[in-house]
Amino acid sequence: ARRGYAEAVFCEGKTVEQVAAIAAAVRERGARTLFTRLRPEQVAPLLAALGEDPAALHVPEARLVAWPAEPPARSGGLVVVVAAGTSDLPVAREAAVTAAHLGREVREVVDVGVAGLHRVLGHLDLLRSARVVVVAAGMDGALPGVVAGLVPCPVVALPTSVGYGASFAGVAPLLTMLTACAPGVGVVGIDNGYGAGHLAAQIAAS
Amino acid sequence: ARRGYAEAVFCEGKTVEQVAAIAAAVRERGARTLFTRLRPEQVAPLLAALGEDPAALHVPEARLVAWPAEPPARSGGLVVVVAAGTSDLPVAREAAVTAAHLGREVREVVDVGVAGLHRVLGHLDLLRSARVVVVAAGMDGALPGVVAGLVPCPVVALPTSVGYGASFAGVAPLLTMLTACAPGVGVVGIDNGYGAGHLAAQIAAS
Amino acid sequence: ARRGYAEAVFCEGKTVEQVAAIAAAVRERGARTLFTRLRPEQVAPLLAALGEDPAALHVPEARLVAWPAEPPARSGGLVVVVAAGTSDLPVAREAAVTAAHLGREVREVVDVGVAGLHRVLGHLDLLRSARVVVVAAGMDGALPGVVAGLVPCPVVALPTSVGYGASFAGVAPLLTMLTACAPGVGVVGIDNGYGAGHLAAQIAAS
Amino acid sequence: ARRGYAEAVFCEGKTVEQVAAIAAAVRERGARTLFTRLRPEQVAPLLAALGEDPAALHVPEARLVAWPAEPPARSGGLVVVVAAGTSDLPVAREAAVTAAHLGREVREVVDVGVAGLHRVLGHLDLLRSARVVVVAAGMDGALPGVVAGLVPCPVVALPTSVGYGASFAGVAPLLTMLTACAPGVGVVGIDNGYGAGHLAAQIAAS
Amino acid sequence: ARRGYAEAVFCEGKTVEQVAAIAAAVRERGARTLFTRLRPEQVAPLLAALGEDPAALHVPEARLVAWPAEPPARSGGLVVVVAAGTSDLPVAREAAVTAAHLGREVREVVDVGVAGLHRVLGHLDLLRSARVVVVAAGMDGALPGVVAGLVPCPVVALPTSVGYGASFAGVAPLLTMLTACAPGVGVVGIDNGYGAGHLAAQIAAS
Amino acid sequence: ARRGYAEAVFCEGKTVEQVAAIAAAVRERGARTLFTRLRPEQVAPLLAALGEDPAALHVPEARLVAWPAEPPARSGGLVVVVAAGTSDLPVAREAAVTAAHLGREVREVVDVGVAGLHRVLGHLDLLRSARVVVVAAGMDGALPGVVAGLVPCPVVALPTSVGYGASFAGVAPLLTMLTACAPGVGVVGIDNGYGAGHLAAQIAAS
Amino acid sequence: ARRGYAEAVFCEGKTVEQVAAIAAAVRERGARTLFTRLRPEQVAPLLAALGEDPAALHVPEARLVAWPAEPPARSGGLVVVVAAGTSDLPVAREAAVTAAHLGREVREVVDVGVAGLHRVLGHLDLLRSARVVVVAAGMDGALPGVVAGLVPCPVVALPTSVGYGASFAGVAPLLTMLTACAPGVGVVGIDNGYGAGHLAAQIAAS
Amino acid sequence: ARRGYAEAVFCEGKTVEQVAAIAAAVRERGARTLFTRLRPEQVAPLLAALGEDPAALHVPEARLVAWPAEPPARSGGLVVVVAAGTSDLPVAREAAVTAAHLGREVREVVDVGVAGLHRVLGHLDLLRSARVVVVAAGMDGALPGVVAGLVPCPVVALPTSVGYGASFAGVAPLLTMLTACAPGVGVVGIDNGYGAGHLAAQIAAS
Ligand SMILES: Nc1ncnc2c1ncn2[C@@H]1O[C@H](COP(=O)(O)O)[C@@H](O)[C@H]1O
Ligand SMILES: Nc1ncnc2c1ncn2[C@@H]1O[C@H](COP(=O)(O)O)[C@@H](O)[C@H]1O
Ligand SMILES: Nc1ncnc2c1ncn2[C@@H]1O[C@H](COP(=O)(O)O)[C@@H](O)[C@H]1O
Ligand SMILES: Nc1ncnc2c1ncn2[C@@H]1O[C@H](COP(=O)(O)O)[C@@H](O)[C@H]1O
Ligand SMILES: [Mg+2]
Ligand SMILES: [Mg+2]
Ligand SMILES: [Mg+2]
Ligand SMILES: [Mg+2]
Ligand SMILES: [Mg+2]
Ligand SMILES: [Mg+2]
Ligand SMILES: [Mg+2]
Ligand SMILES: [Mg+2]
Repeated sequence: ARRGYAEAVFCEGKTVEQVAAIAAAVRERGARTLFTRLRPEQVAPLLAALGEDPAALHVPEARLVAWPAEPPARSGGLVVVVAAGTSDLPVAREAAVTAAHLGREVREVVDVGVAGLHRVLGHLDLLRSARVVVVAAGMDGALPGVVAGLVPCPVVALPTSVGYGASFAGVAPLLTMLTACAPGVGVVGIDNGYGAGHLAAQIAAS
Repeated sequence: ARRGYAEAVFCEGKTVEQVAAIAAAVRERGARTLFTRLRPEQVAPLLAALGEDPAALHVPEARLVAWPAEPPARSGGLVVVVAAGTSDLPVAREAAVTAAHLGREVREVVDVGVAGLHRVLGHLDLLRSARVVVVAAGMDGALPGVVAGLVPCPVVALPTSVGYGASFAGVAPLLTMLTACAPGVGVVGIDNGYGAGHLAAQIAAS
Repeated sequence: ARRGYAEAVFCEGKTVEQVAAIAAAVRERGARTLFTRLRPEQVAPLLAALGEDPAALHVPEARLVAWPAEPPARSGGLVVVVAAGTSDLPVAREAAVTAAHLGREVREVVDVGVAGLHRVLGHLDLLRSARVVVVAAGMDGALPGVVAGLVPCPVVALPTSVGYGASFAGVAPLLTMLTACAPGVGVVGIDNGYGAGHLAAQIAAS
Repeated sequence: ARRGYAEAVFCEGKTVEQVAAIAAAVRERGARTLFTRLRPEQVAPLLAALGEDPAALHVPEARLVAWPAEPPARSGGLVVVVAAGTSDLPVAREAAVTAAHLGREVREVVDVGVAGLHRVLGHLDLLRSARVVVVAAGMDGALPGVVAGLVPCPVVALPTSVGYGASFAGVAPLLTMLTACAPGVGVVGIDNGYGAGHLAAQIAAS
Repeated sequence: ARRGYAEAVFCEGKTVEQVAAIAAAVRERGARTLFTRLRPEQVAPLLAALGEDPAALHVPEARLVAWPAEPPARSGGLVVVVAAGTSDLPVAREAAVTAAHLGREVREVVDVGVAGLHRVLGHLDLLRSARVVVVAAGMDGALPGVVAGLVPCPVVALPTSVGYGASFAGVAPLLTMLTACAPGVGVVGIDNGYGAGHLAAQIAAS
Repeated sequence: ARRGYAEAVFCEGKTVEQVAAIAAAVRERGARTLFTRLRPEQVAPLLAALGEDPAALHVPEARLVAWPAEPPARSGGLVVVVAAGTSDLPVAREAAVTAAHLGREVREVVDVGVAGLHRVLGHLDLLRSARVVVVAAGMDGALPGVVAGLVPCPVVALPTSVGYGASFAGVAPLLTMLTACAPGVGVVGIDNGYGAGHLAAQIAAS
Repeated sequence: ARRGYAEAVFCEGKTVEQVAAIAAAVRERGARTLFTRLRPEQVAPLLAALGEDPAALHVPEARLVAWPAEPPARSGGLVVVVAAGTSDLPVAREAAVTAAHLGREVREVVDVGVAGLHRVLGHLDLLRSARVVVVAAGMDGALPGVVAGLVPCPVVALPTSVGYGASFAGVAPLLTMLTACAPGVGVVGIDNGYGAGHLAAQIAAS
Repeated sequence: ARRGYAEAVFCEGKTVEQVAAIAAAVRERGARTLFTRLRPEQVAPLLAALGEDPAALHVPEARLVAWPAEPPARSGGLVVVVAAGTSDLPVAREAAVTAAHLGREVREVVDVGVAGLHRVLGHLDLLRSARVVVVAAGMDGALPGVVAGLVPCPVVALPTSVGYGASFAGVAPLLTMLTACAPGVGVVGIDNGYGAGHLAAQIAAS
């Protein structure tokens, strides 16, 4: 694994055969690996190629397979992953599983959108105990900036393509996050849950 | 005045002579009028053409002259105008003066950016007593959505070109406001303080 | 309900199970609720979860379910909802049903596009009797500005993604509405009929 | 002259020396020519190089010099040039002078913005007598579409960069004109008064 | 028919029932009408509603039905419609049928892309005999400007969404046409064959 | 100071008087503060208002004043700040001074653009000893992704508006950084050196 | 063939019948031809129309058919085609087959993304022996600039639409390539493997 | 010099002192160097630092200084540089001087815009004798594609920011060039004359 972390295979643009061949090599080498952005027809051949001993973990809503299923021993600080709305959960979950399989303790918080501030304020203790907070949000993407104003640790802002119309498939939340008034926000690409989880794991490494 | 409100003259693209000629006609007709987006060299000739009886009101930071200086008798509900940061004040002030000269009671609140939620929460009583709240904000433009989640009345969201880089001269706050998660937000054009104040006055007419 | 209005559940990005679970809770709590942007497969499970006593109202062209079917007692002023073309009707209808279920009297006007001014001029009495007018339009989106020049009340401009080519899925009408020459226009997001109806209901609250 | 019309020299990107040299050659050849988008420092050397017999016509607000000053004999139909606001006049004037120097009869109409429909309706007889109408407009750019719905002849839509904020230096009116709901609209580039006048002259050639 | 021309019904966003109802009314009134941008499932019900006496003309590749099938008596000048490539033919055909059913003589020229100048030069006589030339082009959209440099009459430039990648669904040819170096080009919206044909018919009316 | 760090005052949009008044209050409260994006005419009045005991630090190329001049005691890990080219130095310096005044040890590396890989490879030991690396780059913005592939720690990517033409004032490097192929990259806004330094200080806090 | 090279037929926007008719003419004339961007249903009729003597070459992953299957005699210098990731292979393959069928020797290198510099450095000898290198890359598109810094010959940069979110269907790599810090990079359109291969063949002609 | 060519120093973002210091080092090392995009105030100090023996060449319209003034011995094939209009000459000249100082024979052709095809056709022999043609063009940028259809060698397309309105500071010609219908076009960044000249010199190396 590059630089001490699990490898990742970006599967969206690969054929079923290519993914299965990579999986066989992964199993052969015994290299801890994440398979991300899987298309539905890739899953069964991938799981077959990885085999059962040890088994893989399939997280369908995050379009992800982690091998082996068991994450490495926990080290470093706590990663809290916040999904602004239920619709942001798939991307947030991809971040959470990635961070966990890179060795961090992870906690998830869902549905704390900025339209009701009391909801995010209700989780303040957990948020303030984190070494890093990942915040996934679509539409206006205002939540990461609000959270950054409430916690001392860095915030990884994860824009999602959730929404319609003037959210322009994630452009609106992306710009909001890049211009967040509170400092302490680092932004990753639209829907890039894998990247957010990886960055969070590196920040929380110590 | 069209539909019962003061007229407005958009001065930015007019020559000094054109503005002075319009002012003379305004004084002649005795028509309550706002002169907006004045270039510095237009102001003295304009004031001269309007004369002293009654006098005009010059609000330099808002690039606005109102004639006559005295607003009409107050009617309707309270308009609260919020400027997220000090840099948004010129545009917010244009909205406030406009609403006042269309006959509303107006209150201004400054520097309550979303990075420090306690600041906006400290004005909650005033905000909740309004018939309409105008919120001017640049950079991430998150404040109108937060305010809309806290008050029962409509919010007029006024994006400003304040900021640099990824705020793209007002595009970032504009998109944030159009996609605000809390309902009850109506957006006007970037830096259009006049339009925001006019809309607010119409909303608060009763 | 937040700030005294019906709740809304944005269903597009949720699973069928999530929507059904929310519906069961809504029924339990007895909270007046709108389910918006429903995908076809969500409708039957949703109606089943809401049950029959009281029944829900399904408005398929607006992709909306209101519970209970009966709107609250009418209060406040009249909301007129205008659809520029027949193709804008689904979004306009979403606005109309939303305003009605927030307690307003609502009237709909269809097919009064700006290409034939006589059509909109023919509805002038109704338009001038409104406390607020919602105007949904795609393509060039010129109608809200024309209406705002004809009525004393505020106009909620609702850009739709109706059209093709250079209307860029609603960007063209959005920009037209944000730069409308007549003051008195507040804009909501592209295809956001729910937001337009909610804002209109708040404006017409008194 | 190409295809039977006056030549044009686009001066903005040329040095003073290049413009003077072209002028000397023009005078030598005796070729009817328009010098467009002149920078202030180019004007005197240009007029000197063109000389006095025959004299040139300088139209400063349109940044244009026509040589010779006298337009050719009139032929074809009437060109009506409409400027939506006073600020659109420089670009509209460039169109009008161009069409006149390509041999057409031209009439100008100013300040008939769409915010007050009565103003444009007051010119209906003139508009309906035209062989082609040029309409220059900035901000929302809605006027060409409205005019096209009122007249049987073609409309040349001329977007201007007049405005601020969300008019995006002419993008908003450009898109409005490209998506105008009434058919019969041909659009030219932003601030391209010369192109609009030339196209109008060709349309009105017979 | 508005202003003396056939009516048009934009069918893309209408239900099958709405289209059939409009068709019945059209037949009742005997009003010459074009039905544009038809979805496949709308065609049979539409033809059934229009009936057989007189019959309608269905042009599938242009997604258009004209009623009655027979165009009106020819008047005015010649309209030449050029399709840069075979892939632009559907949109070019929509323009050609529209112009013909508004009373013009129409000639079509196909596959004369700018990459081989000899092909367009081979049609020079026909092009120069036109009262107006419509040029449909995708990808780089350079053909209308080249044609405008070769003919004395106006050119209606019709950008198409044909292409991939950096043609951005018609944006690249649209911008090329708006900035064409040769004067005499009026641009319509992307894929708007109907609009191009209508404008051409108006230009060629005399 | 919010959350234990120095305050920051964004000066670009403030008047000279507003900045001086804030400075007097800062000195009064004794609150460690950074004044960022200073306009030249603001500097002398600001330094006068802050006084001499303790003195302030003025970093002209970074448009920044830090008060007091002495940074707090160092804690946490090493922050390495890389400027891809000499032209990126002002923004990189703003990040470096910010991180230092939030208590971190900071090292700067300049002119290691991706066009000559040997230059960045020559600094590998220093880069690998960092707790976080900030990489400022304009034009293509490829350097942060290359660095992220070489180091185990997080990379804060700081796009600059350095460049011309197709770098679009920072948009090109911004997109490159958001889509960097190596994981471990968190992006801040264009030219936001302050934000990058603050985020880096938080990441390196332990 | 135009200018001495094989012809190409862009098939995406053509009907099956049009493609088959063109193929019959190609076979008749005996003209060496590439059929590009084939839709699946076009392939069998195309191959049937081309016949068996000589046979055609079908490269499904590149959506290409070359006729005849045998490329012309090799001349000129070596073309090396690099695919940054496995997902870029289809577009890279289109470039490689094109260059080969225009008479060049071609070598392919796959999966040498910039995230792991050692991978590209491992191919340095091959890269430096080329007369031209084609580099296909999506996401951040940083590889062409890195390669251009390592080789003396020109680099043809080929942006692909591979990726998601902020790569915006190829816009991010396109901008990166246009602003590459190392000189010697010529860019073609997004996903335009044919154009890249053609340009490379012309560069390597001698 | 990297890879056997002259070095280049991009001066726009550097201080006068930085440029002078680099010049002194250049003279010391005796390294053939181009100083590009010079600001006026940088020129005299730069020339002073380079000294007189050998002297430097200053090309003001191209904002370039070459040292030493004498280009290296000519090798390779002919580079023809075409400027579509006089306004494109500065950028074209930068390309021409760059290619000459990298050792190529260079010929310049000016003012052969696509609006008058006869002008470009008049240079056909020269164009067809080139090993590579550089074509600089603004506004619609159609010329490179036309030239590519006329010559067998590669074309380097160089978009310029010349123009106004809908040319969007070079975006319109950039897109035209990326989508040129004739193959054989490689595009460089907007106004990047240096890059175009460098690429051309590499293509024409043999
Ligand atoms: N979902 C993802 N989004 C962005 N980058 C990813 C993703 N999954 C994997 N990657 C990156 O892509 C690389 C693998 O690409 P590949 O070799 O094509 O499978 C990994 O090393 C990661 O850096
Ligand atoms: N600052 C402003 N921003 C936007 N619109 C304005 C502004 N000031 C005036 N207007 C509108 O422009 C119209 C006047 O335009 P004009 O006739 O050119 O002065 C007024 O009726 C207003 O509707
Ligand atoms: N294909 C089309 N593209 C653009 N506008 C069209 C098209 N077809 C019809 N229209 C316009 O849309 C109007 C009809 O709209 P509707 O009343 O919704 O059928 C017509 O009067 C035309 O102005
Ligand atoms: N005018 C220019 N446009 C684009 N890139 C340039 C230009 N001049 C120099 N360069 C590139 O920038 C590098 C020098 O950058 P610097 O070290 O900041 O002077 C050179 O090696 C060239 O690759
Ligand atoms: Mg924080
Ligand atoms: Mg509210
Ligand atoms: Mg109104
Ligand atoms: Mg008309
Ligand atoms: Mg012409
Ligand atoms: Mg790393
Ligand atoms: Mg190279
Ligand atoms: Mg060629």
